[in-house]
Amino acid sequence: MNIISSSQNDKVKYLNKLYRSRNRRKEGVFILEGKRLIEAASAGGADFKQVFLTPAFFKSAENDELLADLKSKAEFIYLKGYLLKEIASTVNPQGILAVVEESIFKGDDFYRRADKILLLDRIQDPGNMGTMIRTAVAAGFDGIIALKGSVDIYNQKVIRSTMGGIFSIAIRQKLSQKEFLTEIAAEAADYELLAADIEAEEYYFEHQYQDKLILMIGNEANGLDSKLMDSATVKIKIPLAGEIESLNAAVAASVISFEILSQQLQKDK
Amino acid sequence: MNIISSSQNDKVKYLNKLYRSRNRRKEGVFILEGKRLIEAASAGGADFKQVFLTPAFFKSAENDELLADLKSKAEFIYLKGYLLKEIASTVNPQGILAVVEESIFKGDDFYRRADKILLLDRIQDPGNMGTMIRTAVAAGFDGIIALKGSVDIYNQKVIRSTMGGIFSIAIRQKLSQKEFLTEIAAEAADYELLAADIEAEEYYFEHQYQDKLILMIGNEANGLDSKLMDSATVKIKIPLAGEIESLNAAVAASVISFEILSQQLQKDK
Repeated sequence: MNIISSSQNDKVKYLNKLYRSRNRRKEGVFILEGKRLIEAASAGGADFKQVFLTPAFFKSAENDELLADLKSKAEFIYLKGYLLKEIASTVNPQGILAVVEESIFKGDDFYRRADKILLLDRIQDPGNMGTMIRTAVAAGFDGIIALKGSVDIYNQKVIRSTMGGIFSIAIRQKLSQKEFLTEIAAEAADYELLAADIEAEEYYFEHQYQDKLILMIGNEANGLDSKLMDSATVKIKIPLAGEIESLNAAVAASVISFEILSQQLQKDK
Repeated sequence: MNIISSSQNDKVKYLNKLYRSRNRRKEGVFILEGKRLIEAASAGGADFKQVFLTPAFFKSAENDELLADLKSKAEFIYLKGYLLKEIASTVNPQGILAVVEESIFKGDDFYRRADKILLLDRIQDPGNMGTMIRTAVAAGFDGIIALKGSVDIYNQKVIRSTMGGIFSIAIRQKLSQKEFLTEIAAEAADYELLAADIEAEEYYFEHQYQDKLILMIGNEANGLDSKLMDSATVKIKIPLAGEIESLNAAVAASVISFEILSQQLQKDK
């Protein structure tokens, strides 16, 4: 076992470079830190490139299962514990980091894979973004589109907040609004395009949702862009019973997506 | 107009003291910063003690309505802009701070006022707590109980995250679990006591909710305490369709509370 101890080592330099988002994007990869996230990624079928780990992590019997799993997928690179800690962005990376390929889908591919899609329009907060992805997966959605102007889905905090959900859903991001609208006209004309609108006539629980749909959720402060709102084929209203002007974006997404799941479960009965 | 310019002034010293939570608790007050929150508090019928403002805020015509409203409720104290900025915890307090009485309800009082109650068991994150209160108000809940071990509801970040919701709901906090269980046995025996439990047989959308209920939501990482779970009179399950082990606490609360509101709206039709 060759254990790297110098930050001047080429593989360490490469890893350090990937901590800048520009370099990650160029390579089409992202970084996972810690055992739990890496387990979730492995279970979700993520495409591993390199695994950086400490000898202690390698030797611990409780990691055997994960390591056997990873060994067949990726190159293992061993680092001294202090070096791995120095590189990682989390305070406690637990002796393991991994470089994983972004799953990128082209339009055509994506819509073949995804029937229930959550569209995120300029979502700013990584925790919010992660929670929405986690909730979408829980509600049975199978695709996420994040439009340009949203926080990077492969940001560490987003990934952590998805609680592993990010690895079991198809993802498209950095699409402009115009590209999205052109693309769905060509590839997803049979999808219901849903927007929550306080002026809508139909309550969200009155609408009978189709199997193929795109639920559009807008920016935390400004809501959905007006062009997207105009493009909606169905507008639904979430009632507000108390003295509150609006719901948090993640809450609105949750309420609607779980209504969609409930209807489906009741239909399947 | 007497404009205070020294941090050694008694009223300024008093205000500074209130920025320590121990002192606030002793006095039974909390602090609001910025126009928007103070407007919401005033509209919600909050009990103002002092308003600290800058001459510029006082003179600006767009503040006339709010100031007329506050003038009848509280003492006005004028501070130089730099002094107010120095005291405030937000970066931009917008020229106005207010000291407001905590609304404290005794058990008996509280249950007379509140039919639909959200119970928060050791919620740690202020943003989460605020979002849950905002959502509860939106869903027509009229009471919040925060058990000991939860973040202080009158924490600035909680208040801001409620988006004004905190002023239109009855609040009890710092109750121990034991006090809560004793209290509801005596005062709220006719309330349905709800808990989300992945082992439950009934889905949350199958249950017919009573008018009087307490929805119990547990700690973000550990869920509801087992004694509270055991005390539940109704256990309901939120289905998880995808590869996700659990929902975020605020999301679970949203999904259930909006189902309760939907049922009510459908009944009222």
